[in-house]
Amino acid sequence: MNKLSRIPTLEDIQETHESISRLIHRTPVLTCRSIDEMCGGARLFFKCENFQKAGAFKMRGAASALLRLLPEERRQGVATHSSGNHAQALARGALLLGIKAYIVMPENACYTKRKATEQYGAEIIACAPTLEARETTLQTIVERTGATFVHPYNDYNIIAGQATAAKELLDDTDALDAIIAPIGGGGLMSGTALAARYLSPKIRVYGAEPANVNDAWRSLRAGHILTNTTTDTIADGLRTNLGDKTFDILQRYIDDIFTVSEQNIVYAMRQVWERMKIIIEPSCAVPLAAVMQNTSVFTGKRVGIILSGGNVDLDNLPFGHYPAQDA
Amino acid sequence: MNKLSRIPTLEDIQETHESISRLIHRTPVLTCRSIDEMCGGARLFFKCENFQKAGAFKMRGAASALLRLLPEERRQGVATHSSGNHAQALARGALLLGIKAYIVMPENACYTKRKATEQYGAEIIACAPTLEARETTLQTIVERTGATFVHPYNDYNIIAGQATAAKELLDDTDALDAIIAPIGGGGLMSGTALAARYLSPKIRVYGAEPANVNDAWRSLRAGHILTNTTTDTIADGLRTNLGDKTFDILQRYIDDIFTVSEQNIVYAMRQVWERMKIIIEPSCAVPLAAVMQNTSVFTGKRVGIILSGGNVDLDNLPFGHYPAQDA
Repeated sequence: MNKLSRIPTLEDIQETHESISRLIHRTPVLTCRSIDEMCGGARLFFKCENFQKAGAFKMRGAASALLRLLPEERRQGVATHSSGNHAQALARGALLLGIKAYIVMPENACYTKRKATEQYGAEIIACAPTLEARETTLQTIVERTGATFVHPYNDYNIIAGQATAAKELLDDTDALDAIIAPIGGGGLMSGTALAARYLSPKIRVYGAEPANVNDAWRSLRAGHILTNTTTDTIADGLRTNLGDKTFDILQRYIDDIFTVSEQNIVYAMRQVWERMKIIIEPSCAVPLAAVMQNTSVFTGKRVGIILSGGNVDLDNLPFGHYPAQDA
Repeated sequence: MNKLSRIPTLEDIQETHESISRLIHRTPVLTCRSIDEMCGGARLFFKCENFQKAGAFKMRGAASALLRLLPEERRQGVATHSSGNHAQALARGALLLGIKAYIVMPENACYTKRKATEQYGAEIIACAPTLEARETTLQTIVERTGATFVHPYNDYNIIAGQATAAKELLDDTDALDAIIAPIGGGGLMSGTALAARYLSPKIRVYGAEPANVNDAWRSLRAGHILTNTTTDTIADGLRTNLGDKTFDILQRYIDDIFTVSEQNIVYAMRQVWERMKIIIEPSCAVPLAAVMQNTSVFTGKRVGIILSGGNVDLDNLPFGHYPAQDA
């Protein structure tokens, strides 16, 4: 596949899907009648990227980016900074393709995530837990090794990969009225919006974001990129800000963004754990929280929800902080 | 279907399976390569009864017993004592069949389990948290209402229902070398053993039990039923003792029982949560703990594991008490 230097087309997404299929799972689409009832009778179709290889949709984008490297780039390896799912996905994809991976990770990163990334054979470079330290350390690594920086979201190759989750969801369901995905840096949301617009032109495309890190919601209203001044959310995958490429796609292709409270994120997460018996991480519960907070928008509608990932730290679960409510 | 007054035959199990199919899910069989590797290269096939209706295999037995009631028995309702999965299953089955259900539950039962049982429309009768109080209260209810007592495990109708989980697992996999299930009162184990012996005569049939409540292990060695003197295990579904019917079937049809430590139960549960991203309850992790503790027995073997249920109290998870070990 060739590298993409413009917004991915339908053909790009289809080609990407075919190419990455040997590196990813085709994840199931699940339904849950009792959660439907809690959402005013919406019909929800959950695309289970929590069952994806390396535990999250990030595997799709990483595979897409890795498979587009030139032969000489492959030899020099790839690098990124991430403490989360992008790190694991890039490490796993690189391992399978015989490519060296350098991952810059804050020294306070969660033990299990660090360990998982190491088990995929990546070289971990610890840095101070600030964005500046991450970027400086990454820059040093790239200069020293010649590795290619694979951005976690602001990259058309990544976006084309993330788009394949929505493509599969739309292929596997009939006539959805709406589709909704979480927004962090906007890679998954951009891919979801593109696939949905291409494959189902009349579908409503929604994003969901924690109210505490509502940079995308504010950016779309302002017409330019605004950033978060706090990272105070349990949805640790959604603390990042948009990039210019993802902001551009979101501006063009999505209908609206819902913001949700921390309490409702944990409540939605609890419902999925208790009723569907599957593990999702807090970031992954944000779209369901949005549907639950806005049932009037979704009543009677067929709604696709991208469940983004299932990598959660079992030693630090949020349920105690937000006790069970009565439904 | 007629009531069963002898050990279920293959035909009984097949007839039961057909009859209960409208009240149960056909649950999936999942595999997990990384857990296989942790088990010395065994090939494990997980029968996911945690995804069963009402969250556990108990739905199968309850449906089997309810569908065998005579018309006059249906009119007078059913009763049982249980704080767990049997209560929820009987309540749900009764609701769907238009039968009144009386559930005697200790007053200290977990809030979410009580609530779930109530939501299925059952009448909950609270009693003191002792076996004696449960039995006396149940007796009073049965005398007052004429309801039929549905025993949670020591009943051939229940056993025929539980057997259908192993039947499906064997139908959906090729040539298993062994099958393993947890042992509490022995209903699931009895059904598993019968289905396995009928459908796959050469298969090895194993039970798994917490070492702290190893009544079945001791009973088989003694040749008569022994009881537990403590209920000190996190596997709350496995604290009960065998009944005469289940003991008889276990004596005849199973090869061996493995006992496992509390720490290994929680470790196995954590692996399933982290790697398979599915929720299982502690009792459900006991067979995997047994395989992990005895890898030499299972190396290179194709092993069916009945994952019995996924009803867990998210406010009281065990991971903090047994921190993550290095694999």
